[in-house]
Amino acid sequence: MTEKAFQDYYRDEYSHCYGCGRLNDQGLQIKSYWDGDETVMTFTPSTYHIAIPGYVYGGLIASLIDCHSTGSAAAAAYRAENRAMDTDPPLRFLTASLHVDYIKPTPLDVPLEVRSTIKEIKGRKVIVTSGLYAQGELCARGEVVAVQVPEHLLPNES
Amino acid sequence: MTEKAFQDYYRDEYSHCYGCGRLNDQGLQIKSYWDGDETVMTFTPSTYHIAIPGYVYGGLIASLIDCHSTGSAAAAAYRAENRAMDTDPPLRFLTASLHVDYIKPTPLDVPLEVRSTIKEIKGRKVIVTSGLYAQGELCARGEVVAVQVPEHLLPNES
Repeated sequence: MTEKAFQDYYRDEYSHCYGCGRLNDQGLQIKSYWDGDETVMTFTPSTYHIAIPGYVYGGLIASLIDCHSTGSAAAAAYRAENRAMDTDPPLRFLTASLHVDYIKPTPLDVPLEVRSTIKEIKGRKVIVTSGLYAQGELCARGEVVAVQVPEHLLPNES
Repeated sequence: MTEKAFQDYYRDEYSHCYGCGRLNDQGLQIKSYWDGDETVMTFTPSTYHIAIPGYVYGGLIASLIDCHSTGSAAAAAYRAENRAMDTDPPLRFLTASLHVDYIKPTPLDVPLEVRSTIKEIKGRKVIVTSGLYAQGELCARGEVVAVQVPEHLLPNES
């Protein structure tokens, strides 16, 4: 793993996302890293991320997979261009589609790990497949189609 | 629309969900209703539910569709049995799979409406399709496969 998370390379103006923005005090502030050709992220749910007692609500799982996947897509796009993540032009991705299969109830009281692979990079589109694990057990699978953010939607540079 | 939301019929022990539990002070506390054969839910995001400036983060959209769909599945299952939602035995649903297509960026500063139809009821499985609208514009489409919660996962009655 590298020391700096993908999300720590995002410029300030892109760092407000509830899921992954380091500047969102009320958000999840997830941190994603390379681990060889996979990307990995660990997150420990809070007690209020409950579904029914003892289990994590599905929206959190979807959110973790979503933001980790768009971060992974960006990291993969930079890697494909042989560029560091803090070089210009910036590459940011939005989710075109998100699919999550909930394999088994996810326990609330342990760290969750999302491990992802880059299934495809084609033009401005990156497909990321993920597994969400609790204590080594697969609890959910995800697939995200991420597309590079159109220039007209990018915030102005600060 | 009825006056009482689907979620207001859930027993206390099922009402802790971050997305839809009326007893989760830190959660979204969504409220879903019948509108003819459709179900509908309105939610106004907070400023911290941001993705990039001006737009809602995808995880919230997934969460709204997810919890509204499991609530709609329960309501549809009761309706199929010609029962009120506060009668026994209780019917609660979990998400087996969630798919969201993000059609266009969803603005952050307006109420969002999710309108859903019950596509199929088959045994313990209910499929719910949804559109998420901002000021009448379709921003996302969702499909949830919901399954009735197995008895061994249900919390004990209080």
